[in-house]
Amino acid sequence: MQVTAQQIADLLKGKIEGNPQTIIRRPARIEEAQEGDICFIAHPKYEHYAHTTNASVLLVSHEFQANGGKRPTLIRVADVRGSVVMLLEKFGHQIQQNEGVDQQASIHKSATLAANVSVGAFSFIAEGVEIGENTTVYPQVFIGKGVKIGKDVKLYPGVRIYANCVIGDGTIIHSNAVIGSDGFGFAPTGNGTFRKVPQIGNVILGKEVEVGANTVIDRATMGSTVLEDGVKLDNLIQIAHNVEIGENTVIAAQAGIAGSTKMGKNCMIGGQAGFVGHITVADGSKVQAQSGVARSLKKPNVAWHGSPAFNYADFMRSQVVFKNLPDLAKKVHELEKQLKELKG
Amino acid sequence: MQVTAQQIADLLKGKIEGNPQTIIRRPARIEEAQEGDICFIAHPKYEHYAHTTNASVLLVSHEFQANGGKRPTLIRVADVRGSVVMLLEKFGHQIQQNEGVDQQASIHKSATLAANVSVGAFSFIAEGVEIGENTTVYPQVFIGKGVKIGKDVKLYPGVRIYANCVIGDGTIIHSNAVIGSDGFGFAPTGNGTFRKVPQIGNVILGKEVEVGANTVIDRATMGSTVLEDGVKLDNLIQIAHNVEIGENTVIAAQAGIAGSTKMGKNCMIGGQAGFVGHITVADGSKVQAQSGVARSLKKPNVAWHGSPAFNYADFMRSQVVFKNLPDLAKKVHELEKQLKELKG
Amino acid sequence: MQVTAQQIADLLKGKIEGNPQTIIRRPARIEEAQEGDICFIAHPKYEHYAHTTNASVLLVSHEFQANGGKRPTLIRVADVRGSVVMLLEKFGHQIQQNEGVDQQASIHKSATLAANVSVGAFSFIAEGVEIGENTTVYPQVFIGKGVKIGKDVKLYPGVRIYANCVIGDGTIIHSNAVIGSDGFGFAPTGNGTFRKVPQIGNVILGKEVEVGANTVIDRATMGSTVLEDGVKLDNLIQIAHNVEIGENTVIAAQAGIAGSTKMGKNCMIGGQAGFVGHITVADGSKVQAQSGVARSLKKPNVAWHGSPAFNYADFMRSQVVFKNLPDLAKKVHELEKQLKELKG
Repeated sequence: MQVTAQQIADLLKGKIEGNPQTIIRRPARIEEAQEGDICFIAHPKYEHYAHTTNASVLLVSHEFQANGGKRPTLIRVADVRGSVVMLLEKFGHQIQQNEGVDQQASIHKSATLAANVSVGAFSFIAEGVEIGENTTVYPQVFIGKGVKIGKDVKLYPGVRIYANCVIGDGTIIHSNAVIGSDGFGFAPTGNGTFRKVPQIGNVILGKEVEVGANTVIDRATMGSTVLEDGVKLDNLIQIAHNVEIGENTVIAAQAGIAGSTKMGKNCMIGGQAGFVGHITVADGSKVQAQSGVARSLKKPNVAWHGSPAFNYADFMRSQVVFKNLPDLAKKVHELEKQLKELKG
Repeated sequence: MQVTAQQIADLLKGKIEGNPQTIIRRPARIEEAQEGDICFIAHPKYEHYAHTTNASVLLVSHEFQANGGKRPTLIRVADVRGSVVMLLEKFGHQIQQNEGVDQQASIHKSATLAANVSVGAFSFIAEGVEIGENTTVYPQVFIGKGVKIGKDVKLYPGVRIYANCVIGDGTIIHSNAVIGSDGFGFAPTGNGTFRKVPQIGNVILGKEVEVGANTVIDRATMGSTVLEDGVKLDNLIQIAHNVEIGENTVIAAQAGIAGSTKMGKNCMIGGQAGFVGHITVADGSKVQAQSGVARSLKKPNVAWHGSPAFNYADFMRSQVVFKNLPDLAKKVHELEKQLKELKG
Repeated sequence: MQVTAQQIADLLKGKIEGNPQTIIRRPARIEEAQEGDICFIAHPKYEHYAHTTNASVLLVSHEFQANGGKRPTLIRVADVRGSVVMLLEKFGHQIQQNEGVDQQASIHKSATLAANVSVGAFSFIAEGVEIGENTTVYPQVFIGKGVKIGKDVKLYPGVRIYANCVIGDGTIIHSNAVIGSDGFGFAPTGNGTFRKVPQIGNVILGKEVEVGANTVIDRATMGSTVLEDGVKLDNLIQIAHNVEIGENTVIAAQAGIAGSTKMGKNCMIGGQAGFVGHITVADGSKVQAQSGVARSLKKPNVAWHGSPAFNYADFMRSQVVFKNLPDLAKKVHELEKQLKELKG
């Protein structure tokens, strides 16, 4: 892909300083840019690169001071970060794949595919499935009986969706994620063994949800495991049966949420954090990476840390003392000795 | 699926109060029930729903007091929880899939499939594989050379079983789980690089084992990685090479067990817990979520917590103090000052 | 597979004591060996097995003292552990699979496959892919547009490689691992929702890298996520966008590294350890299992522990006091009381 600085400036409603005919081949990070690259400066600590970079074009703010050294062509915009997203969207289209319905897909005759749906080779679409327009099913995807998929959805290779789940418009599910596997439910029989509790519910994903690679969302025992609109899950996350997650909550990789926990909206959950089951987590909760939440978090917009987790600031203060615990123990021992002397 | 209250009462050997012809369409949670739903009350805290629910039928104990308000039809049974499992089994059958051997499966001519085995599209069954009767291989499964699979097994889409592994009767493996991948073994060469230690053993899963989605069980270097009968693994769990797990041990999501560790039977392991390699874990051990077990746990039926883990009750007592460590440090500082004054 | 002790001795340049015609069927662990097995003794604590084992052949050092009891045939070698690796390599070949290009693979006409490449059934190879000689693509693998794969590579069933990634010679990727999925990048819109930041970079894996089952390596936003030669990743690991890992670093299962973190070479990372984004980790760092690294580790060859992590030895000292915190708190309380009495 090859465009001119002028074309990009038009796209971003930006102002050019330099040669509008400069050729751009790809966006790049300024630390490693080569000729043909367009880079951006959105933070003062990167400004020093401006005059040494080999980039052909720099995306900068109206306020950026271009002093000395080499001078790549500049495109000045009001919102650098927002413009970068637009730029990446433009260049990102080229790695997409949409090639109609492959001959080597297996699609049940009762399934209904809307206009402009693509289905890759070796994908399996079961009885009664419905898929909305412009949805891309990459190769090697499994879609179980009665699943309903909205429009503009992307299902990457190896995604598995068990029977009866529902996927909202604009949702993206990355490779090898599993949606609707059985919840982990077993009834003790009294002799040490367990009897499987059948899991007959489903999973409902809202609109514009993103699910990372190898993440698992279990179906409900009864009813639904629900992720509201705009929830973003990173890779390798565990969402257990009957969990509910409020809109626009963002969860980092390898976090896990146990059964029936209800998480609010706009939460930020760090990587490898864990939540026990049957609790509620207030809107806007911020849980640090590796924290373990063992009880309901009732106050909204509070930050938590530790395992078991408590107030973030309190945790950090305790942690400071923890690092010097041997000193503290020594002091106490010393005090005991002195006091004994004093009394003796 | 549609049944009458009478049919369900017959199935559960229950006693009807109300209309035996009431139509039931699905089991549901009482908080969200609609007409046509059958719900259950197995705990006093849910009893208040009994008179406001829209459910058509309630499954309750013989002792349940049905006072006031609306009156759904009741089915009284001796064991509510056990009856719910039976009910879910009845309704669960409808989401199963068993459609014979698909034309688009790849099955080596030397593989032997017993009666009533189903194999889905795009599944691959290698040389010398043996599969017992009534086993369901969903689409897109990989079964490597010489693998032996018992009867009544379910392998969900995307399961991968490497060569020579053995899967016991009645075992269920969920989507994208991997059985028999290489253990993580490398020999240092002396110049900083590592040489791969080939992993030529296998994995043996007993009967009635369940393996969650995206869980990985590595093959042994030599010999076998073994899960005894009735072991239940949740999603995204790591079982390393040469691990052995005793019967009916239950492990929650994202836990990990390092190489050659031998875990006893009837253990309960919390989510995200970790175990170092080459240790033994006594029967009936209970390890809390996120705990890190760094040495052998020799006494059976003990609960453990923390990272590194120690006795659960002791951990909780230490944790109470940890939360107030800044206060403790302040007190010690204050004591030092006072003592200095006293001495000076 | 069946060989004689003499054949193995020749392979390992070893010296036989006993019958050179002894038949060997497989390598086994000495604790569970049967007739036809070859076992090894590389540590004094296993020497007692030497005279009770049913193994037919023992691999031992030149110094090993063979006293009393039963006498299996011995093969004496200079380096027992190194010889075991060679032995396993010999027996490991039999479980490999290489059967040419399967009729049921989907290979784009523009893809180029070098000599002796095998591609299994239901694998999908997209436009412009290049694959080097002797590479094995097992069944059900996905290789996206423009991916470049070196020679002697093994891609196990269910591996997914998104567009434009690069895989070096001799690299092994286990089942259901995902290479090149989108990094977790979202720009806040100001109204609580997020806008996806397209991820247009790629992943570059060096030579002799190993990637465990169900591990995920995200593509860079721009530029590349890079694993240098000889990096070994266990199962279920998360490598976020733009991470860089230096050569011969070894990472145990379920560890996670957040975006843009640069890890040095020859590091040893324990299982379930986590690293925040945008930090550097010095060469030779040793991070204990479950540790959480929250800031750059600048000094090379240091061991770290805890969450947040600090110096390993310091952590262990603090941990000793932590286990007895209730005692310490009691002592402080007692001191307060005594001091009060003294002053009063």
